[in-house]
Amino acid sequence: MFPMNAWYVACTPGEIDEKPLGRTVCGERIVFYRGPDGKPAALEDWCPHRGAPLSLGRVIEGKLVCGYHGLEMGCDGKTIAMPGQRVRAFPPIRSFPVIEQHGFVWVWPGDASLAGASALPALPWANDPEWAYGGGLYHIAADYRLMVDNLMDLTHETYVHATSIGQPEIDETPCKTTVEGDSAVTSRFMNGIQAPPFWRLAMRAHGLPDDRLVDRWQICRFHPPSHVLIEVGVALAGHGGYEAPKDKKVYSIVVDFITPETATSMWYFWGMARNFRADDRALTAQIRDGQGKIFAEDLEMLERQQANLTRWPERKVLSLNIDAGGVQARKIIERIVAAEQAARAAAVPAAA
Amino acid sequence: MFPMNAWYVACTPGEIDEKPLGRTVCGERIVFYRGPDGKPAALEDWCPHRGAPLSLGRVIEGKLVCGYHGLEMGCDGKTIAMPGQRVRAFPPIRSFPVIEQHGFVWVWPGDASLAGASALPALPWANDPEWAYGGGLYHIAADYRLMVDNLMDLTHETYVHATSIGQPEIDETPCKTTVEGDSAVTSRFMNGIQAPPFWRLAMRAHGLPDDRLVDRWQICRFHPPSHVLIEVGVALAGHGGYEAPKDKKVYSIVVDFITPETATSMWYFWGMARNFRADDRALTAQIRDGQGKIFAEDLEMLERQQANLTRWPERKVLSLNIDAGGVQARKIIERIVAAEQAARAAAVPAAA
Amino acid sequence: MFPMNAWYVACTPGEIDEKPLGRTVCGERIVFYRGPDGKPAALEDWCPHRGAPLSLGRVIEGKLVCGYHGLEMGCDGKTIAMPGQRVRAFPPIRSFPVIEQHGFVWVWPGDASLAGASALPALPWANDPEWAYGGGLYHIAADYRLMVDNLMDLTHETYVHATSIGQPEIDETPCKTTVEGDSAVTSRFMNGIQAPPFWRLAMRAHGLPDDRLVDRWQICRFHPPSHVLIEVGVALAGHGGYEAPKDKKVYSIVVDFITPETATSMWYFWGMARNFRADDRALTAQIRDGQGKIFAEDLEMLERQQANLTRWPERKVLSLNIDAGGVQARKIIERIVAAEQAARAAAVPAAA
Repeated sequence: MFPMNAWYVACTPGEIDEKPLGRTVCGERIVFYRGPDGKPAALEDWCPHRGAPLSLGRVIEGKLVCGYHGLEMGCDGKTIAMPGQRVRAFPPIRSFPVIEQHGFVWVWPGDASLAGASALPALPWANDPEWAYGGGLYHIAADYRLMVDNLMDLTHETYVHATSIGQPEIDETPCKTTVEGDSAVTSRFMNGIQAPPFWRLAMRAHGLPDDRLVDRWQICRFHPPSHVLIEVGVALAGHGGYEAPKDKKVYSIVVDFITPETATSMWYFWGMARNFRADDRALTAQIRDGQGKIFAEDLEMLERQQANLTRWPERKVLSLNIDAGGVQARKIIERIVAAEQAARAAAVPAAA
Repeated sequence: MFPMNAWYVACTPGEIDEKPLGRTVCGERIVFYRGPDGKPAALEDWCPHRGAPLSLGRVIEGKLVCGYHGLEMGCDGKTIAMPGQRVRAFPPIRSFPVIEQHGFVWVWPGDASLAGASALPALPWANDPEWAYGGGLYHIAADYRLMVDNLMDLTHETYVHATSIGQPEIDETPCKTTVEGDSAVTSRFMNGIQAPPFWRLAMRAHGLPDDRLVDRWQICRFHPPSHVLIEVGVALAGHGGYEAPKDKKVYSIVVDFITPETATSMWYFWGMARNFRADDRALTAQIRDGQGKIFAEDLEMLERQQANLTRWPERKVLSLNIDAGGVQARKIIERIVAAEQAARAAAVPAAA
Repeated sequence: MFPMNAWYVACTPGEIDEKPLGRTVCGERIVFYRGPDGKPAALEDWCPHRGAPLSLGRVIEGKLVCGYHGLEMGCDGKTIAMPGQRVRAFPPIRSFPVIEQHGFVWVWPGDASLAGASALPALPWANDPEWAYGGGLYHIAADYRLMVDNLMDLTHETYVHATSIGQPEIDETPCKTTVEGDSAVTSRFMNGIQAPPFWRLAMRAHGLPDDRLVDRWQICRFHPPSHVLIEVGVALAGHGGYEAPKDKKVYSIVVDFITPETATSMWYFWGMARNFRADDRALTAQIRDGQGKIFAEDLEMLERQQANLTRWPERKVLSLNIDAGGVQARKIIERIVAAEQAARAAAVPAAA
């Protein structure tokens, strides 16, 4: 259950710099590579000659050359050449809209003619030199919506991430969920608390005393199809919290691009954008490693939760106040998918 | 094909001392842990909040705390508390009768209201300081009844365990099978033979000469649902065999608790209880290691036999005299399962 | 889709010298071993007693003894003996025609009464002391016909084996395919070219200068059910190529016996027979290692191609001129399979 007509993160730019990459997105087997102009291209991972995966091939001067018998494929899905063959009548393969922006390669797995209708998310930090970004990729055997749930309800931090970012006050402080068009927002403000280990590290990195009480905030924003951006930060207590002046707070954005692979598996691009010490690459690496360990703690939980849901398909789960963010996000997804299905049905000729 | 209304060994006590244990028994996914009084508890491995497995959680003061969002579950399957929530209306989860006795944790996967109707097996050695016990656990991808067959026909020792407990005389000596109510007993008495390596070791441990001819016995007792206890021993030849005075013989009980996991997999709790040198822990460890190696020799055979039976489902196997123990055990199992099914059918309201 | 009434390579002789071998051929689970006269025997891998795989047993004086309870099986599928049992009424198991010849053990998985009707392939080099043979075995998760395709279209060498036997001239030189009865032949002659690395090695081994232009040939012969023998070689340019005198050329036969395991997996027996320095065992080993590495390059391609074909079953592939060898081989296979099916249908009594 995922929208097809949407931009998903397919890979990071570095993944296709050296050689083609085969990756399934929303059930579509796709090969990603860099075409003649260095821009990313995305095609069905199928050589029209004998069905070999093109992702096992090589890129030569922007042409994707099949690794089996040398068929040369163009970015538009039309065969350019093949040794000793006339290729004009070769059946084309499907190409997918793809674009490199904000430090990611994005793919549109649905109807290419609609690709312009939906914009890429606005990520101002991605192109701002005052911000730094570090992140990674996990493959998780679970419905991508379980990750949306996870990120829209941060009370799990107290239990899953007890030693890094979790603290009892998250549980104890009510959150507030609102829906703005196709976005859902869940926010929580905790005032006058001790900062947990991760934030004490960040405070020190920012030149703030790490033993003072802080005001902490978490603002989770879901954007369809499956992006969750979370504003997180702490300010020295009593300076206005989220609104505190820059030298009294430290904050960042937890970045989550969740790409369905199949109905029960996903590619999870996680990372953190921060606007302090943006030039400090060692700090970027340190934060990425720390975040990678923290986010890995969710993997087993989600995969085993998925196994339980698969085992007991008829069983209902609860929707509590803390789940409101995930519930609203799922409603938005359902609405979009239903609209897509209605549009497809309407496109079928009436005479059929 | 297994009785549901019966006590099965779920785990050893040590497996739940530190943290909860998730284990499937008779097709039921169950979490085992120690409740407020230190007594074992058994619940469906499903958090009513979002379906996470409770076995990934922690036990705090006897309450099972979900590792995802902190729901606190009671031993009766009712939610005790959850941060920031009123839990009274939370749907209960199923709890299973469970008891710690004889050095094992036993679970009743069927109808809890019938749990008192069937007693745990009597295992006098388990609570007798003159006896020592050592054992282990194997997971085997085969119908549990293949293990019952295996243990009720020890002629396989000659072939599978040729270097330890097997010897040609087992094959050459007829066995006798009787049925007493719900128990099946297969016994074999071999007189005036050489003791095989395992028993020569036991004789030395018992202060008996290991180069003398012995009378050897094997008495396999099947008790439903799937327990096989085997009295085994050797006596110096001519002193009465099984009935010989204590100082002329060495004997023990091979203990086999076979717990179905699914229709084609099992948890196999194996061990040996002995009444000589009961305080010698090094000997206990030595015997356990030796038995573990011997019993591991059965694993590949049973798993590959299962693969053959799955591949050729329509094919019949033979039931020879040596198979009588297993055949009778299967008949007892079938009778019990049929009675359970009849009782379930009778329980359906007539008006339906 | 494979002929059943045909000889397939089951294993190499050494694989059954020490103990029985369980291997599935054309969907049949078979145990191979050496009978009383040292000749190979082939039986269903099923003990009539309790369904254990006989391949877990031992061979004692030419009898296959089940590793579970000691049943002794004869080469004809009839039980010879079992400790304490009368075995005359034991149901026989199926035996398969099997023969050791040309350095391989061959099995006939189909109707045994037809086994004489089709001869083993003639392999004169196999019994000629002027020739040496070295080879190996790969298990590949792909339809065996994908390997036939692979071997009947050597243009893939340019891409898959670029660093050893591939060279652009293979692509650039048209091939010619003919069908002679049940054989298909694809040949390619490349004159006045540089020899690729593998052939330069062979020229040096043969005492020829390795820096001279050569005429190179590849003659691929498909014989049903799935044997591909490829004459390959190079001669110093201008001496007649394939017809050049012996001291001006170096040549060998690439030997490929492809045995279907299931519809989507195969046993691939590959090797090379050469008629130069036949006594040089170090050279045999060197060539086998080199060929093993080269042929391993095909594995991932074929397995991923199979995954693509399984994923897109309705999708057609192209049949170009370079594919003619594989296409003709498939037609021959289809004709044989259709004839087998027709014969089976005709054998059904009309009254049914």
